[in-house]
Amino acid sequence: MSAQKSYEELIKRIKEVSLLYSCEAVLGWDERTYMPRGGAGHRAEQLGLITGLAHEKFTDPRVGELLAELEQSDLVKDADSPEAVNIRETRYQYDKRTKLPKDLVEEITRVTTLAQGEWVTARKNSDFKHFLPWLEKVVKLQRDKADAYGYDTEPYSALLDDYEVGATTEEIVDVFTELRKELVELLEKVKGAPKRPDASIVTRDYDVELQRVFGESVAGSMGFSFNEGRLDITTHPFCTGIGPGDTRITTRYNPKRLNDALFGIMHEAGHGLYEMGINKKEYFGTPMGESTSLGIHESQSRMWENQVGRSRSFWVYFFPQAQRIFKESLGDVKLDDFYAAINEVKPSYIRVEADEATYNLHILLRFELERPLLTGELKPADAPGEWNSRFRKYFGIDVDKDSNGCLQDVHWSAGYIGYFPTYTLGNLYSAQFFARAKQDMPDLTKQFESGQFSGMREWLRKNIHLHGQRYRANRLVEKVTGKPLSHKPLIDYMNKKYSEIYGF
Amino acid sequence: MSAQKSYEELIKRIKEVSLLYSCEAVLGWDERTYMPRGGAGHRAEQLGLITGLAHEKFTDPRVGELLAELEQSDLVKDADSPEAVNIRETRYQYDKRTKLPKDLVEEITRVTTLAQGEWVTARKNSDFKHFLPWLEKVVKLQRDKADAYGYDTEPYSALLDDYEVGATTEEIVDVFTELRKELVELLEKVKGAPKRPDASIVTRDYDVELQRVFGESVAGSMGFSFNEGRLDITTHPFCTGIGPGDTRITTRYNPKRLNDALFGIMHEAGHGLYEMGINKKEYFGTPMGESTSLGIHESQSRMWENQVGRSRSFWVYFFPQAQRIFKESLGDVKLDDFYAAINEVKPSYIRVEADEATYNLHILLRFELERPLLTGELKPADAPGEWNSRFRKYFGIDVDKDSNGCLQDVHWSAGYIGYFPTYTLGNLYSAQFFARAKQDMPDLTKQFESGQFSGMREWLRKNIHLHGQRYRANRLVEKVTGKPLSHKPLIDYMNKKYSEIYGF
Repeated sequence: MSAQKSYEELIKRIKEVSLLYSCEAVLGWDERTYMPRGGAGHRAEQLGLITGLAHEKFTDPRVGELLAELEQSDLVKDADSPEAVNIRETRYQYDKRTKLPKDLVEEITRVTTLAQGEWVTARKNSDFKHFLPWLEKVVKLQRDKADAYGYDTEPYSALLDDYEVGATTEEIVDVFTELRKELVELLEKVKGAPKRPDASIVTRDYDVELQRVFGESVAGSMGFSFNEGRLDITTHPFCTGIGPGDTRITTRYNPKRLNDALFGIMHEAGHGLYEMGINKKEYFGTPMGESTSLGIHESQSRMWENQVGRSRSFWVYFFPQAQRIFKESLGDVKLDDFYAAINEVKPSYIRVEADEATYNLHILLRFELERPLLTGELKPADAPGEWNSRFRKYFGIDVDKDSNGCLQDVHWSAGYIGYFPTYTLGNLYSAQFFARAKQDMPDLTKQFESGQFSGMREWLRKNIHLHGQRYRANRLVEKVTGKPLSHKPLIDYMNKKYSEIYGF
Repeated sequence: MSAQKSYEELIKRIKEVSLLYSCEAVLGWDERTYMPRGGAGHRAEQLGLITGLAHEKFTDPRVGELLAELEQSDLVKDADSPEAVNIRETRYQYDKRTKLPKDLVEEITRVTTLAQGEWVTARKNSDFKHFLPWLEKVVKLQRDKADAYGYDTEPYSALLDDYEVGATTEEIVDVFTELRKELVELLEKVKGAPKRPDASIVTRDYDVELQRVFGESVAGSMGFSFNEGRLDITTHPFCTGIGPGDTRITTRYNPKRLNDALFGIMHEAGHGLYEMGINKKEYFGTPMGESTSLGIHESQSRMWENQVGRSRSFWVYFFPQAQRIFKESLGDVKLDDFYAAINEVKPSYIRVEADEATYNLHILLRFELERPLLTGELKPADAPGEWNSRFRKYFGIDVDKDSNGCLQDVHWSAGYIGYFPTYTLGNLYSAQFFARAKQDMPDLTKQFESGQFSGMREWLRKNIHLHGQRYRANRLVEKVTGKPLSHKPLIDYMNKKYSEIYGF
């Protein structure tokens, strides 16, 4: 068989796997939006069958044979060609997925399903002891998983790689440490600053239906197409790229808070633009037709949410519109007061409610706990103490109870150890990309001020989206910005912004 | 291997097939409710994959082996036991599906996909000539399909069996002919009747949101559970039973017509109650956990829509509520005038808009064309002439154009020849069941008058729903009513109702 024929067979096989996962995406979207409660049990069976079939098809030995043959062919000569990329990334995932023993995968599923239930109880009662045996089990299984994958220097890298392909702990630890130091300093400056925003502005009455209309208008201006996408309501907002021409986002509305849904919609629409920007027409179902990492995905959402949505220039355009829509609550407000209000910095316990400046401290703290948890240097029983002492150091406040501390997130109970760093990577990438975009488009601020976002969007599409998985995250950052990952662009951006708002 | 083990393997296999089809049901529901337009192409690929996988798994030769073994075992001794039923009906479907050559199935799919597009154009321009070559192709392919299935007396039976398992043309043709004669007579009586309803009552202003609230209230009273179901909006209303605990119905609202959504919701909720009434918790994925035929399904929807929803006793309870909700339009209306208005009989061209009395004439006409089309006695080119002459005879009016005649329905272009009779079978079954229910519950009318529908619902559940496919339609009718299918109960019910309303 010619290499071309084998390549076609490989593509046909992995496209079928992707089609199955895209059916799973529809089932998952439906589960979280419209499925009646009574359908939960049956939905679990449907999802189990589809993921099982997809896994079976992807790990079929024939895929391995085809890969082995293709890796010797001319198709991989140009390492950045679509063919070479598809072969490289399929091999990577094939090896990972065939490395995990079936027993281990099943045990992880079993334990994390139970652990999530126990975590809900433990969080409700702020009872860490109740969760401890489950955390111990999860950590043990995640260590087994890391061992099965294999790793160079420490087990954490093996898990991180599940979410940020090709990233290693070594590579990010210095950047994260620098970032943490700078953020703690920044927070000190903010605390001692002479100016303070009046955040009560954004907690006035904001009619939910008007929030939806305004949010859709903003998402539309960003370029999120409602012919090829939807916005619905869920408890936990998300974005799902179902396939070519079908990308869906969700949000939740609070009638007393403008920020939640507004920046939530921009965040999810940022994810959505990435999904819409990938060349799925041509490459759906292959690595060239997929996003390159969770961190890069998060960079897209955070850039639209923060660098764009929380910029003054964005509101030069949108604030008059917001004033017309929310006349009662914003009619008497000055642009600069609104701008300060949406950028308030205020240390708080809960990660998902954190402001832009403190958010990464929440992540870094978790990263600093997860690594030693995995090596065994930190015992699960000591996690709350370690959490609370670091929290005191970074945020300057004492954790009052574990439900506001190490019990707040679902991740550990779900077995997602190694996931948290992708949030901070996303913020780092977004700042580094945005700094570069401003160099490439010196009038970007002016564009925002006149409601033009196509320049930004097309820059992202061309430099990031259209590549699919051609470049892994760290290489993409270097390709686009000319420099390796650094904490500086994010810190520079924050220092500039907050010194203006807080007057330090 | 013991028979029990083989049975378990068979059940496991067919449950997996059903799970796949239930994933298809979610994809189909989503396609018709919320999917963004841009997702249509991808959705077709998802559906193609899932149905292909399901077909492949169901027609796996191993299924045939297991069936052959089980048919020799003790498990089929009691022919009505769940095991025997599951083996019998699985065999029946297995034989049917393995009889069709792959080429023919693919050709039918290809031609009907194209034919449906051409039919849309032909109907828009009322241009039968444009559709004729496609009708010829479809009829030819359906004849090939009938030949592949095999049949006793005429090819039509083989196609009918796809929709009404076990039914034969011979069995229904006499009942249909009697029914047609009686209906034509009834229509004559109505036309010459002294009293005429004022149907303008139901074409006043009916706020869409209030229609929804009222419709959900009615469906809830019927016993449709919104914890285990939903009501959404689609262009073409339908009901889909996704699985245990998840049954969904849809409707469409016309702000100037009360009947469409109201009786539409009752109709679909009637289908929904059948799905909810089957013992899916125990039998999902097997014939015992599925409805027994399209005709029986239609009997459930039509009974709730007509025998219940268009009865005077139903409105004794609901009319005051409707008057409160639609005060402007119904406040000054008398119950009996409203009751007459919702029961107006008026010959019209379009089947889906037909009233209860003329509806079956539309079906019988199609049945009388489809049979000779299939044998070749009627040439597709002569279909419009035959249609129009019969229409004149039965309805007393001339068809003005083919888009109001033989081009109105999608069925032929989609290859659904043999489907139409299930609508009239449904109406016949519903009347026959209802007459029996009234014998079993002499106070049924009183129950309706006081808003009690649990008696009706539980009677249906016990006598029909819970059996799944234990009895095929014709046997079920005999089991429940003690008599074979007859046109009499329907005609008796109609003569009684319309003689009261029209005063003949």
